[in-house]
Amino acid sequence: MKIQGIVAATFAAYHTDGSVNLDIIPSLVDNLVNDGVSGVYICGTNGEGPNMTIEERMAVAEAYVKAANKRILVLVHVGHTSIMECKKLAAHAASIGADAFSSVAAFYFKPTSVQNLVDSMAEIASAAPQLPFYYYHMPTLTGVGVDMVEFLRLGEQAIPNLAGVKYTASTLFEYQACLNYKDGKFDTLFGFDEMLLPALAVGAQGAIGSTYTFAAPFYLKVIDCYRAGKAEEARQAQLVMVNVIRAIIKHPSIAAQRAIMKMLGTDMGNARLPLVSLSDSAYNELRSDLEALGFFKQLNDFKQLSDNPVAV
Amino acid sequence: MKIQGIVAATFAAYHTDGSVNLDIIPSLVDNLVNDGVSGVYICGTNGEGPNMTIEERMAVAEAYVKAANKRILVLVHVGHTSIMECKKLAAHAASIGADAFSSVAAFYFKPTSVQNLVDSMAEIASAAPQLPFYYYHMPTLTGVGVDMVEFLRLGEQAIPNLAGVKYTASTLFEYQACLNYKDGKFDTLFGFDEMLLPALAVGAQGAIGSTYTFAAPFYLKVIDCYRAGKAEEARQAQLVMVNVIRAIIKHPSIAAQRAIMKMLGTDMGNARLPLVSLSDSAYNELRSDLEALGFFKQLNDFKQLSDNPVAV
Amino acid sequence: MKIQGIVAATFAAYHTDGSVNLDIIPSLVDNLVNDGVSGVYICGTNGEGPNMTIEERMAVAEAYVKAANKRILVLVHVGHTSIMECKKLAAHAASIGADAFSSVAAFYFKPTSVQNLVDSMAEIASAAPQLPFYYYHMPTLTGVGVDMVEFLRLGEQAIPNLAGVKYTASTLFEYQACLNYKDGKFDTLFGFDEMLLPALAVGAQGAIGSTYTFAAPFYLKVIDCYRAGKAEEARQAQLVMVNVIRAIIKHPSIAAQRAIMKMLGTDMGNARLPLVSLSDSAYNELRSDLEALGFFKQLNDFKQLSDNPVAV
Amino acid sequence: MKIQGIVAATFAAYHTDGSVNLDIIPSLVDNLVNDGVSGVYICGTNGEGPNMTIEERMAVAEAYVKAANKRILVLVHVGHTSIMECKKLAAHAASIGADAFSSVAAFYFKPTSVQNLVDSMAEIASAAPQLPFYYYHMPTLTGVGVDMVEFLRLGEQAIPNLAGVKYTASTLFEYQACLNYKDGKFDTLFGFDEMLLPALAVGAQGAIGSTYTFAAPFYLKVIDCYRAGKAEEARQAQLVMVNVIRAIIKHPSIAAQRAIMKMLGTDMGNARLPLVSLSDSAYNELRSDLEALGFFKQLNDFKQLSDNPVAV
Repeated sequence: MKIQGIVAATFAAYHTDGSVNLDIIPSLVDNLVNDGVSGVYICGTNGEGPNMTIEERMAVAEAYVKAANKRILVLVHVGHTSIMECKKLAAHAASIGADAFSSVAAFYFKPTSVQNLVDSMAEIASAAPQLPFYYYHMPTLTGVGVDMVEFLRLGEQAIPNLAGVKYTASTLFEYQACLNYKDGKFDTLFGFDEMLLPALAVGAQGAIGSTYTFAAPFYLKVIDCYRAGKAEEARQAQLVMVNVIRAIIKHPSIAAQRAIMKMLGTDMGNARLPLVSLSDSAYNELRSDLEALGFFKQLNDFKQLSDNPVAV
Repeated sequence: MKIQGIVAATFAAYHTDGSVNLDIIPSLVDNLVNDGVSGVYICGTNGEGPNMTIEERMAVAEAYVKAANKRILVLVHVGHTSIMECKKLAAHAASIGADAFSSVAAFYFKPTSVQNLVDSMAEIASAAPQLPFYYYHMPTLTGVGVDMVEFLRLGEQAIPNLAGVKYTASTLFEYQACLNYKDGKFDTLFGFDEMLLPALAVGAQGAIGSTYTFAAPFYLKVIDCYRAGKAEEARQAQLVMVNVIRAIIKHPSIAAQRAIMKMLGTDMGNARLPLVSLSDSAYNELRSDLEALGFFKQLNDFKQLSDNPVAV
Repeated sequence: MKIQGIVAATFAAYHTDGSVNLDIIPSLVDNLVNDGVSGVYICGTNGEGPNMTIEERMAVAEAYVKAANKRILVLVHVGHTSIMECKKLAAHAASIGADAFSSVAAFYFKPTSVQNLVDSMAEIASAAPQLPFYYYHMPTLTGVGVDMVEFLRLGEQAIPNLAGVKYTASTLFEYQACLNYKDGKFDTLFGFDEMLLPALAVGAQGAIGSTYTFAAPFYLKVIDCYRAGKAEEARQAQLVMVNVIRAIIKHPSIAAQRAIMKMLGTDMGNARLPLVSLSDSAYNELRSDLEALGFFKQLNDFKQLSDNPVAV
Repeated sequence: MKIQGIVAATFAAYHTDGSVNLDIIPSLVDNLVNDGVSGVYICGTNGEGPNMTIEERMAVAEAYVKAANKRILVLVHVGHTSIMECKKLAAHAASIGADAFSSVAAFYFKPTSVQNLVDSMAEIASAAPQLPFYYYHMPTLTGVGVDMVEFLRLGEQAIPNLAGVKYTASTLFEYQACLNYKDGKFDTLFGFDEMLLPALAVGAQGAIGSTYTFAAPFYLKVIDCYRAGKAEEARQAQLVMVNVIRAIIKHPSIAAQRAIMKMLGTDMGNARLPLVSLSDSAYNELRSDLEALGFFKQLNDFKQLSDNPVAV
């Protein structure tokens, strides 16, 4: 499996009473299809998989697979502290027709070596042996920062359905080494949206990230310009998103991104504790920052080109 | 609620096929009652709560409550990345007659302030409002190291059933401040076994820890000597356990402690991934280290005083 | 060499123009002698050794040795990123009649193993082979947290003049193991003032710390009460300082302690960048906090017992 | 000041007796001039400034300025724990005709805010007000990771001779933001050699790094190919150095790079403690790794093109 283009790591949606909102998923997916993304990555970090019960995660996965209806890929994150629960989620993902599954490293007890991590992932991946498996590498959140080339080398033996890695780190030299492992045997998807352009420069073909949920047109322009040799235009499109993301990370980043979804007309509800929503003043500050960057206007321009203007 | 003496944070037990071993719990509890512990703390870190499914955790809790049969206290750890799951476990603990419950901070998304942590714990604690709740403070594992006096101050308002804190950190000055908050309103149990004696010096009355599962007599001697003003004897008893624990932490500490259980005649089976068991050579090295420290001999001497010799 | 009692890690003093203030040293030392301290530890962390030039450090050392005039011990910290400079400072300390010297681990390039640390300290210690040498262990500041028992074991061979360790960490179990290494062969001085009482419980005989510069009477009372078996009184005296230190660490701690010196009538001037002084509002908040804790009043009571009241 | 191309952060050189080797500097500089570098950055991390005395650092700076003789730029690193010493080194650099100077953040006491860092750098920069000043940002080593755009914003006011930043971190999105601060007002030089190509993609014009001392031709090819639109060739040249650097970081990286200098015919002697040299077996492993990567052969091919073959 080799994924081209960008995959949106979508946000969890909740009703006012705190229960999971499945109703919003079809329109969310339709918007993403219109935006031109290649797939969705669900129940991950921004998708708050770890904040949900097993049953809720399964219901969300089913809703996305149904809504996508094979128009775009659905990748299901099954990471959990308990490998038993991971395996349940993996088997379920296979049974409902998801296109791939993925897991972070265990994060209460942390793997102590590459081999230990590979053994853990092999156990999880074995629960859905026909489905491509992507290891979700995100050392800043999990605290597990083992060498990814070594992971591929050991994983190649131990995980028959290993497809690749969702590589969420800024260390592009290691990323480049992963891309070139055995002439590109594995699919190493880049997960640091604010560095998509430099990732393309070292050979990235596909990427997964949360901001692709609401800003896909900017990134697709980065990719188009880069491939057309328009280096300066690619830089300008990327720079907008660098500045947007710098405005986001002045706040707790999941809260800020959910706020942007709301500014754009899609209310995802309140994230679950320990996550919290932006205060009104933070919300307004963020909106002002994005307006000053021309984000909404440019996004609208993109959408109008495709007859699909945004609300603000 | 104020707990006196030592509470054993017991280890998870598994059958050869990897399933949870409930059969071993009655004899384990009987041994601990004979040893003189005041209670058990189950499904915590050493108890591998995060490695189990919700159903397994509930089954373990039921088995302990039944085995204890009110002879000693049963504290149930309900920590989970999903507060929804925490609440299920809390309500269950109350329904089966556990004596108290406890939770670590969320550890995938980490609380960002004391207030955020208190809000999260209040949500969990509200699921079993009649049962005493202990916050489980262990910054080295969870990465959440907020001020515990401030936690008590805010928690006092927001968590009606807040009983206190399982304080697993070496910062005894903050621990002393917690003990003295509002003249000792809360029950702050000390969780760093290797520092029990110095904790007594600042006023500790109760403690929770994993090594109390297999070495309670040493610690009860520390307490007895300390209270009797025999400072040097207290130091000697503590020093044995300091050295034992230093031998343990040459290895992954949960694996090493499970190995000691086996050396003493109780086979807990293999811990679940990402945890692993000691290799044979590490097992033998640990046994040699403990023999050189006189651990087994002294433990046997304690047990013979109570007609209950240990196997090795 | 075995140091009994408490050693004050004194603060750097500067004139209004930013130059080092040597004039203040004689009265500072006289006060400490009156307070009953056993020695001074100079040019360390609170003494801002790393903020001074080599020449300034030598001048400060000379002034202290002269002022102490053998009434109390003078320990000179010689730590520096350059071992060449450390050796110059060590040879100088010996030449002026200091009683001992000490060094932190290198802190730009950090030692990568215990052996590497021992080799580095051996090189420094060799520059004053007749003078007792204390390794200054402070992992939170230097980021070098190697096992101190192992340090003693390897240092015993490689550093003929190794006297012991200034142990500035809260891990009292390792501290207890150091105290008992070869039946107490080395002098392990405790460096975490807010945990002096629990350190006594595991066998501490001597301690070095910055708050002994302005609050020695509280700690001497802790020691006296502990030795007299008055556990509760010892706890109460320690608790005052726990609370004082908790008030201090609401602010940058060196700035806050220098502010306390000023409140008590000794103006040390402004610390050097990147250190800064407390703002006026922070200064006043700290003073209010200390007043609420009864710190000044109790200190005055102590002083009046010795006919030496403090200014506030 | 805007530096184009690559600047070699050279290694310290020592005689067998441990004294600084100035004799080697002229030939080292000649080689670098032949290699096509734009300048040298001396007494930095790899140059072991912090391991040397002030006098040694001055002597090294003089030797480089003389050897360079205006053929290439000389940037002098003046970072030190003591700002007084930094200022001495800065004034000296100006007096001998260096082209620019640079400093890391203080690293014993760490700056606590961007403003505090700017204040500290302003104090240092003021000692050579006519000379361009570059802040040396390297959070992994110094532990000071403040926002660099904010640093430029505040530094612009407080540091009249601020030329830019030596940006040694993998966070290319922040780097891109720095490059675009006020339409490129400041010179932000990239310091992570293994990510030079992706840095070019976001707009880098100049770079400073240690591996440019021995592998400049590979990087110059990266730059040439990138500018000529030969994306795949650029990637291939960068990939060689990614793999070389991955071979280096299997070992302590300064020791490994010094070993490579020796393999290439230039013996820099033994680095100073706490740095150590590679063991013979590590040396041979590294050489085998580099041979397997074709490093020496390709380097020789580059050199022969310029009539300057390397020794191995």
